[in-house]
Amino acid sequence: MKIANRLNSFKDEKYHLINDPKLRLEYLFKKAVKLKGITHVDLNYPDHFQYHTVKEIKDFFSKYKIGINGTAIRFYSYQEFQHGAFSNPQKEIREFAIQETKKIIDITEQLGASVVTIWPGQDGYEVPFQINYEEVWNYEVVAFKKICKHNSNIKISLEYKPHEPRINGFFYSGGITLDFISDVGEKNLGVTIDLAHSLASNEKTALILSRILQKKLLFGIHINDGYGKNDDGLPLGSVNFITLLECMYLLRKFNYNGVLYIDSDPKLINATTEFNLNVKTLKKIKKKLSQPFISQIEKTQKKQSIAEAIKLLHKLL
Amino acid sequence: MKIANRLNSFKDEKYHLINDPKLRLEYLFKKAVKLKGITHVDLNYPDHFQYHTVKEIKDFFSKYKIGINGTAIRFYSYQEFQHGAFSNPQKEIREFAIQETKKIIDITEQLGASVVTIWPGQDGYEVPFQINYEEVWNYEVVAFKKICKHNSNIKISLEYKPHEPRINGFFYSGGITLDFISDVGEKNLGVTIDLAHSLASNEKTALILSRILQKKLLFGIHINDGYGKNDDGLPLGSVNFITLLECMYLLRKFNYNGVLYIDSDPKLINATTEFNLNVKTLKKIKKKLSQPFISQIEKTQKKQSIAEAIKLLHKLL
Amino acid sequence: MKIANRLNSFKDEKYHLINDPKLRLEYLFKKAVKLKGITHVDLNYPDHFQYHTVKEIKDFFSKYKIGINGTAIRFYSYQEFQHGAFSNPQKEIREFAIQETKKIIDITEQLGASVVTIWPGQDGYEVPFQINYEEVWNYEVVAFKKICKHNSNIKISLEYKPHEPRINGFFYSGGITLDFISDVGEKNLGVTIDLAHSLASNEKTALILSRILQKKLLFGIHINDGYGKNDDGLPLGSVNFITLLECMYLLRKFNYNGVLYIDSDPKLINATTEFNLNVKTLKKIKKKLSQPFISQIEKTQKKQSIAEAIKLLHKLL
Amino acid sequence: MKIANRLNSFKDEKYHLINDPKLRLEYLFKKAVKLKGITHVDLNYPDHFQYHTVKEIKDFFSKYKIGINGTAIRFYSYQEFQHGAFSNPQKEIREFAIQETKKIIDITEQLGASVVTIWPGQDGYEVPFQINYEEVWNYEVVAFKKICKHNSNIKISLEYKPHEPRINGFFYSGGITLDFISDVGEKNLGVTIDLAHSLASNEKTALILSRILQKKLLFGIHINDGYGKNDDGLPLGSVNFITLLECMYLLRKFNYNGVLYIDSDPKLINATTEFNLNVKTLKKIKKKLSQPFISQIEKTQKKQSIAEAIKLLHKLL
Repeated sequence: MKIANRLNSFKDEKYHLINDPKLRLEYLFKKAVKLKGITHVDLNYPDHFQYHTVKEIKDFFSKYKIGINGTAIRFYSYQEFQHGAFSNPQKEIREFAIQETKKIIDITEQLGASVVTIWPGQDGYEVPFQINYEEVWNYEVVAFKKICKHNSNIKISLEYKPHEPRINGFFYSGGITLDFISDVGEKNLGVTIDLAHSLASNEKTALILSRILQKKLLFGIHINDGYGKNDDGLPLGSVNFITLLECMYLLRKFNYNGVLYIDSDPKLINATTEFNLNVKTLKKIKKKLSQPFISQIEKTQKKQSIAEAIKLLHKLL
Repeated sequence: MKIANRLNSFKDEKYHLINDPKLRLEYLFKKAVKLKGITHVDLNYPDHFQYHTVKEIKDFFSKYKIGINGTAIRFYSYQEFQHGAFSNPQKEIREFAIQETKKIIDITEQLGASVVTIWPGQDGYEVPFQINYEEVWNYEVVAFKKICKHNSNIKISLEYKPHEPRINGFFYSGGITLDFISDVGEKNLGVTIDLAHSLASNEKTALILSRILQKKLLFGIHINDGYGKNDDGLPLGSVNFITLLECMYLLRKFNYNGVLYIDSDPKLINATTEFNLNVKTLKKIKKKLSQPFISQIEKTQKKQSIAEAIKLLHKLL
Repeated sequence: MKIANRLNSFKDEKYHLINDPKLRLEYLFKKAVKLKGITHVDLNYPDHFQYHTVKEIKDFFSKYKIGINGTAIRFYSYQEFQHGAFSNPQKEIREFAIQETKKIIDITEQLGASVVTIWPGQDGYEVPFQINYEEVWNYEVVAFKKICKHNSNIKISLEYKPHEPRINGFFYSGGITLDFISDVGEKNLGVTIDLAHSLASNEKTALILSRILQKKLLFGIHINDGYGKNDDGLPLGSVNFITLLECMYLLRKFNYNGVLYIDSDPKLINATTEFNLNVKTLKKIKKKLSQPFISQIEKTQKKQSIAEAIKLLHKLL
Repeated sequence: MKIANRLNSFKDEKYHLINDPKLRLEYLFKKAVKLKGITHVDLNYPDHFQYHTVKEIKDFFSKYKIGINGTAIRFYSYQEFQHGAFSNPQKEIREFAIQETKKIIDITEQLGASVVTIWPGQDGYEVPFQINYEEVWNYEVVAFKKICKHNSNIKISLEYKPHEPRINGFFYSGGITLDFISDVGEKNLGVTIDLAHSLASNEKTALILSRILQKKLLFGIHINDGYGKNDDGLPLGSVNFITLLECMYLLRKFNYNGVLYIDSDPKLINATTEFNLNVKTLKKIKKKLSQPFISQIEKTQKKQSIAEAIKLLHKLL
């Protein structure tokens, strides 16, 4: 299993005491590589790149013998994008968002990574009648076309999320995201599914995951759990264990060989402790979902039988 | 305004006392045409066609001087489709569902109507691990391709709905439905949005309606209201008045000139009374959303301003 | 384990072919007692009592050697209560609802049972501004006071449910139901929790169950599962397995020795097959939740540790 | 109308540039009193009290001629209460939370105010099996008993909220809060309802507000709006206008003469602009809900008629 963990979850008290900002990123790397089971990390742009050259960051990966899963652009770090990045009413700001994304695409290639994750969390609306959905949709299409065309070797992965407090996200579900991707029509545009976002979106998580996998558009997956309202970022399977099981089954069925990015958000529990528990959960599931059981699932599903599905669950739980 | 109302909502006590089943459909027509404001009705297949030739039914429309909005196939009326129509594990049953749909397409053309609405309410699953989503998706694609190709002059409108008790609907949201439509790739396939279904699907109703309109795929709209859990079929605007306002605004903006099908489900209130109240609500909204206010909305939305949106609401409410 | 199953789930095709209505109830008894693991059944009033004297029904229990869990009054069977039973705007109808409930209380005592379950499913409202909540609340208090005082030896168990299509239930959650019970102030008034209702009510199911148990007010429990919107009546643990585990743990912790009433609603699966699967699920859980593990849970919870809770889950799943 | 607004929503850029922390609170007062329509403010403990004596703060109220609505204790400001305040597994911390609350009760009396609002936002759990609900419930009962008894002249108002990211709040709905209050059994314990919290709790907002008012337990109300998932803090009526209308109607019906505390959370819009829009919304509603219309509502509700309720809405919208 390829496993990544949110790098920023290692920002502990010691981290905040580091005076020289140039030493902070390396601190996070040191914490991450100590984890048993981790194979990759992701980097956020611009924050993780503020005090380092790309060369320096690339060296961290060799020095700490860890893989790079990809990069993610974080529009919330920019004052300019408070009222939207690609959806911003001002043309210059929309262009600036595109330019910044192109920068991280270039950096990603230099780092030898292949995926840039984009979560346009500021692109949305607060109240009815606030935006012209058609116009904003067109802004998004234009932006993603330019971004995708900038470098067809780099995969662009759109991470959807239904809402922030007060903000309705424009890309609020897997379904609308797939529709958007066919509208953009670029081959290097795909989807990052985050389980907690999907649960909060009230969609049918396993069905949409299957759909994304079937279209070969799963460019990233964030695993965690949630109660279906907030982006809870809870430990894996702690609430919706069966959903996690079915998603892990689907990843295996479609031979997904990407990284499992653990996107839990521990605040009251040590990040390393939570990581270890999460890896244990993944191992338990891997064991449950091995052959010949996988073949049995496939055979059973031919009949679409409710009773047989319950018998499968009896074996799994 | 072109307005239709669910014909079956006029099945009152007297209706059930009619002995000769051949007289029942005409009874419903008589009730419908008495309504002030109604312009169209829809017919369900097979039930409304059981005791009549197509010719006889066509004559009702001339005799009662009312337009035909379209037809709808009702798979729940068939014992065969209990475990799914197009998604059924048995090939013969899937084929039978396609055949029946072709029949109603032919009838629809003979009636001079142009839309067949399909709500595959039996196509879904009850429990996790029950179905192979990919396989079922492919069954649906195959079926809709055949149906659409049968007669490219007839529009096929897919009505989505998130769930029935115990059943997760396969077409559970507008987003997944648009993705499906691009997968099928036939020009005569579009969407029927039902406001109560959309609310229960927890999607962003106005945004997805705009999206469907922008793609010129709105082949039907069922208007009603709901609390976001069940298919409540409540009087228009009785709960989510602002959502109704925004949807009506979008229909106007995109020059939708189809029929507004009132799909409320009165049980404790007389259907005629509810129809009259609903028409009054529509008229109130039409008045609120007239020029020059429409232009003002468009101008305001350019700025994406929350404050300006609230000022619009102050004028509307 | 004391286990009951919904008697009406055995109404199969053969049942509907029985000409003599006097023979129908016995048919259901015969089907029920064949189930391995069933110990009790419930009876619905008025339907199950329509063609039999109380004596005859009592004899069925001895003849078929099965226990009686209790009775339930079904207001939806009455034309009179369409617009509400205890909440009806007409005083005579409210009184009639009370009279009917007193009748079933008397019958229940004669049957040697001790609980009457009341689900006032018609008591609610469809739209805002329709009812005076204060007045209706008072109607309910008056009705339940009279009912409880009629025979203090019979427990009255109020089953809450958030909604029906179009109807907002007046007793929509465990919290409001407990508040109502303290308002009524009668010692023989308690609660029936139905897991699917609780999930659809979006309350915290385990927390409210603990609360009801702590107050010694759990007079009945309906077990099943659901997706949190409808009253799905799905097989036990098929969706929210961890919630079921925690509820079963709480029942054990509080030494609940009442009947587990399986309230699933199989339509596409044989009722006997589903019952057997459900009993198997219960046995699996019983095994998981045995000593010394129970004591370990209690010890762990003293620390309120998230990590320790995940470790408990690792042992349970 | 008595109207308050969240003082902290005036923390603008200038505020953050004030060097002397002693000058900050007064800055907020100055901003607040400029608002047309504001009559009261609330103070948070400990933050607003950090750099001032109670005397100094009292003087602000006279100097700026504004009323004090009450105080609120903010446990999230304390490192000690991260794992819960009254629910904390450690007895010393539970006691410390009680001591701190007693302090603010004393201060509140000195200020001449009469209500302390308590939102125990850290009291809850993240995952199943983490806490012993019964034990924590008892901790809460003990704490609130002590707090209430400390000074029976000061009203203690419990503000409920269903969740924070990752945290399930212990007081998650109005129903469970009323049940808790009857368990505590102290006359000076009541409820603060926050509309966005109530919507996110999926309860029936108007019904529970009526219930709290009927029990004379409404000690505070926070008005705002939300989409039913997060604590959105949106402008009044911008989403659920009819719910706001019905709540305002209930406040009038029960002669609530407390302060309307506007708890919106503007980030992308100037706080003063949003306040002005909110006051305008309130005035519009006040006008709609005046006599003789109020009497007409009451008369209409006697019939519990759906059609009459829709006619009321036609007059209101």
